[in-house]
Amino acid sequence: MLQALLETLDRDARQRNDWGQVASYIPELASIDPAQFAISVCTVDGQEYHAGDVQVPFSIQSVSKVFTLALALGRLGGRLWERVGREPSGRAFNSIVQLEREQGIPRNPFINAGAIVTTDAVLGQRAPRETLGEILSFLREAADDSDVHINEYVARSEQRTGDRNYALAHFLRSCGNLHNDCDRALGTYFHHCAIEMTTVQLARAARFLCGGFRGHRMIGIERVRSINALMMTCGHYDGSGEFAYRVGFPGKSGVGGGIMAVVPNVASIAVWSPGLDQYGNSKQGTKALESLSKATGWSVFA
Amino acid sequence: MLQALLETLDRDARQRNDWGQVASYIPELASIDPAQFAISVCTVDGQEYHAGDVQVPFSIQSVSKVFTLALALGRLGGRLWERVGREPSGRAFNSIVQLEREQGIPRNPFINAGAIVTTDAVLGQRAPRETLGEILSFLREAADDSDVHINEYVARSEQRTGDRNYALAHFLRSCGNLHNDCDRALGTYFHHCAIEMTTVQLARAARFLCGGFRGHRMIGIERVRSINALMMTCGHYDGSGEFAYRVGFPGKSGVGGGIMAVVPNVASIAVWSPGLDQYGNSKQGTKALESLSKATGWSVFA
Amino acid sequence: MLQALLETLDRDARQRNDWGQVASYIPELASIDPAQFAISVCTVDGQEYHAGDVQVPFSIQSVSKVFTLALALGRLGGRLWERVGREPSGRAFNSIVQLEREQGIPRNPFINAGAIVTTDAVLGQRAPRETLGEILSFLREAADDSDVHINEYVARSEQRTGDRNYALAHFLRSCGNLHNDCDRALGTYFHHCAIEMTTVQLARAARFLCGGFRGHRMIGIERVRSINALMMTCGHYDGSGEFAYRVGFPGKSGVGGGIMAVVPNVASIAVWSPGLDQYGNSKQGTKALESLSKATGWSVFA
Amino acid sequence: MLQALLETLDRDARQRNDWGQVASYIPELASIDPAQFAISVCTVDGQEYHAGDVQVPFSIQSVSKVFTLALALGRLGGRLWERVGREPSGRAFNSIVQLEREQGIPRNPFINAGAIVTTDAVLGQRAPRETLGEILSFLREAADDSDVHINEYVARSEQRTGDRNYALAHFLRSCGNLHNDCDRALGTYFHHCAIEMTTVQLARAARFLCGGFRGHRMIGIERVRSINALMMTCGHYDGSGEFAYRVGFPGKSGVGGGIMAVVPNVASIAVWSPGLDQYGNSKQGTKALESLSKATGWSVFA
Repeated sequence: MLQALLETLDRDARQRNDWGQVASYIPELASIDPAQFAISVCTVDGQEYHAGDVQVPFSIQSVSKVFTLALALGRLGGRLWERVGREPSGRAFNSIVQLEREQGIPRNPFINAGAIVTTDAVLGQRAPRETLGEILSFLREAADDSDVHINEYVARSEQRTGDRNYALAHFLRSCGNLHNDCDRALGTYFHHCAIEMTTVQLARAARFLCGGFRGHRMIGIERVRSINALMMTCGHYDGSGEFAYRVGFPGKSGVGGGIMAVVPNVASIAVWSPGLDQYGNSKQGTKALESLSKATGWSVFA
Repeated sequence: MLQALLETLDRDARQRNDWGQVASYIPELASIDPAQFAISVCTVDGQEYHAGDVQVPFSIQSVSKVFTLALALGRLGGRLWERVGREPSGRAFNSIVQLEREQGIPRNPFINAGAIVTTDAVLGQRAPRETLGEILSFLREAADDSDVHINEYVARSEQRTGDRNYALAHFLRSCGNLHNDCDRALGTYFHHCAIEMTTVQLARAARFLCGGFRGHRMIGIERVRSINALMMTCGHYDGSGEFAYRVGFPGKSGVGGGIMAVVPNVASIAVWSPGLDQYGNSKQGTKALESLSKATGWSVFA
Repeated sequence: MLQALLETLDRDARQRNDWGQVASYIPELASIDPAQFAISVCTVDGQEYHAGDVQVPFSIQSVSKVFTLALALGRLGGRLWERVGREPSGRAFNSIVQLEREQGIPRNPFINAGAIVTTDAVLGQRAPRETLGEILSFLREAADDSDVHINEYVARSEQRTGDRNYALAHFLRSCGNLHNDCDRALGTYFHHCAIEMTTVQLARAARFLCGGFRGHRMIGIERVRSINALMMTCGHYDGSGEFAYRVGFPGKSGVGGGIMAVVPNVASIAVWSPGLDQYGNSKQGTKALESLSKATGWSVFA
Repeated sequence: MLQALLETLDRDARQRNDWGQVASYIPELASIDPAQFAISVCTVDGQEYHAGDVQVPFSIQSVSKVFTLALALGRLGGRLWERVGREPSGRAFNSIVQLEREQGIPRNPFINAGAIVTTDAVLGQRAPRETLGEILSFLREAADDSDVHINEYVARSEQRTGDRNYALAHFLRSCGNLHNDCDRALGTYFHHCAIEMTTVQLARAARFLCGGFRGHRMIGIERVRSINALMMTCGHYDGSGEFAYRVGFPGKSGVGGGIMAVVPNVASIAVWSPGLDQYGNSKQGTKALESLSKATGWSVFA
């Protein structure tokens, strides 16, 4: 029945044929065909359901911020919160306004500034290569799949066109909230954003945030709750309230069109469609999750 | 066991003896003894648990915004969202800055500006008296208790000192987003904020938002989820992310020191302690909910 | 020669036939024919030059703020600056954003919030009628003309539609920076903004700010310099820098299309054309002053 | 008499012994003794007057922005204003907030972001070395003195600690308003800010902005007026209105404690005292100019 539902969601997305705009700031993302859709669901009873372009790897972009956050909390624990807040931002994902108002403390770890600080915290005094190795290992273990890679072209393209992120990084550094130099922190940041996965891999990787999956207790339940809370209030930039309202369970979107979501104790989900809405979240991906929520009654809110 | 836990929470709050500041802008609130605490829990199996000053009525203030939202959604349905947003504000509860930036559309129904618009929507073209009657009836039915009243002194005191709210109302009106005149809309608003309840009454009143309580389906499940989502992302002003992170289930605070919360399908909760933290939320109330969440494992996030 | 120049300016304005938009927020201003132009110049040698619709009285609106400022400085001296700043605002004339950021201290006496505070200071504990009498007397003396009146229709129309100004006034009052109640302060404010004058009257009235006119030392030279400095940096809302750049001497505009300007020790000027540019300043009025400056070399900047 | 006055100003500054804080962000400026003062005046009749530490070269910092603006206007004419505005900013000199609000168009050429764009315009496609040579030549010719140099230590120190300026530059580039790369534009910017001059040299260099000096018509009178207008409305960051009010003629300050000022057709002035007020302008320098204005009656405002 869930399999049939996913197939319906896939067909509906293609029939609506209203894909939104793909991200245009780097050639690698701008050239992607928007008319693509994939959805994968892993339920806690060990079943998996897939529909659509589930074998196409896509750039997970900001979805990677969830994994670096998990690692940062592992390394620093609560001290991370001295450097980054836990509040929705009420601004665009790459706004620098808020950063000035709050003197270099990003509002949360999922806007760009906050993710740069989180990356800096994971880096510590290690080499970027070593840190990226740790991030990839974490992801591969979570996904039970060694075939997760960084797309070097995407990473370098981000670096070349990353002036807005460089502005954020230099601003953070001017406030004393970036310990590595800008090139080092951003190099690492751009690389983990350039990880590519399929929805199959991403839905599996999300199991550790769900609770209830055997053998996927990679982090403690307290931390799982913390990360899900942050995804719920801050996971979709300035569309986070809308997502909570329409979908009703935690998720994190990326500008590559992916969304990773979890229905606690029920299922982990990955959806992908590269066209974006005005907040930078996948248009058909969000729509599919809303329909899935309505059809299944999956919601944390009753 | 839950009874013992609530008694521990009550004792801990009193032992910490760190009560925060009571709201000082009107004499009726400023003169309240901060060293008070009460907590009430209704579980879906029909049990109730209480500890502390559970028979002391307090001013529910912004908690009332949840009930007017429920009524506004009943009257207007989705059209309400043409006049008010569903996003966390990233600002103080009474900020007018955001209102100017977004041209008179408040970010959500729980900041003051949004609650004034919501009140205006519930009013429609009716008399304030009739509208307040409807709000009280709704609350009394939800609480199964006819002894819920408006404190007229508090309402009038708010009106006398309400320049910031008058500023918001006139600004809304200048943007065409207030249909009643300012006195009429604010008169109604100040009165429903001045409703007084005990935690016993408030915990019972919250059952309709919980799901799972027999005989408390006052609104449809879709609407319950919507309201809980809004409480989760916007229920504690600029401390909403923090509350989601620390407590892990939806709630709405008031400047009188009350917090109404729901653990979907599990329990409805009311806590009260009049001293506030820097965001205007009950200091010991929040702390107690955090401890309750930790001790019981109640969380929507896993 | 100056006479010929003014006639050329008048003819040019009419030939360009590009009048801008008249203020639309009250019927009395919205219904004015934009295709009008008048200019009057008084030189320190006692000559006067006029061209265009110089006998048509117009609503001086914000130009009146210069006269209330002069009176406020006379009553309070430097203590006025504890309640209002002297910096350009970088915002629209009726913005409330800045007021929140600077906690109720308006940036300068020429934005609406600052002029409301200035009016409140001139009022003190007197009756509005008495205060308006003083303002009118001052203006009549400055203009050597008893035929200067308040248009009651305009004043009442402003009051009826003045929600934005009421929002500012209530906000100021919530910050403790409005001593009279909002109705009293705004009533006085709307009335002095509704004074009507011709360019002939207004150019004459401006002589006291020029220096060098015999018999027009109504205030000391120090205060003249102060007021001119404020007109230079803040006299045209968020177009003040532009006006200083293009015109090169101090002036104050009003939303009725009037501009009062002074070339220190040389001449006083009034120009009127009711169509406005995007900042709310007279479009053809500004253009005419720019041409006048170029043709005569009148500039304080060399 | 003017000589005696300057000596009094020098003595008064030293007697007040209230020097403000020297700029602390680079060691070269932080280590300067704040108890220094110098003032130089050149009058249009060819006389010069000096008092205080007039032979001590100091870092002119933002005062250099006036000269690069003159050169940029020479190269681009009015096209410069497509890339930078002419309005006071209402913000700190290095704020990035405004830049986001106005989508990469700095408010004026004297805040840091605007000066970086202006430097970029002067650079065009030339080498930084060549451009700096042109700036130095211009300054040496203006000052009639070949002994004007760049302090390389200061320039390099700025570059090392210039994260806030790098943030601005990258932000500008992300908006398409920086044509050279950040290192190239900022390298040039930091170097021209690191020019060192005495008040004698700087007062002489300012003659070209005064009008009335024989042989100092380096730029046309129209441009002189334009630059003076900008210095009047934007020359002292968020203290520009205050400076216009208290001093009454145009000037430009630098964080090294220097102020260059002109009384059109009367005199050019340089004052230096390294301690700063809260806006980043020389505390005793501003005070001395205010006293000078009062004592001489020099003011453009009457």
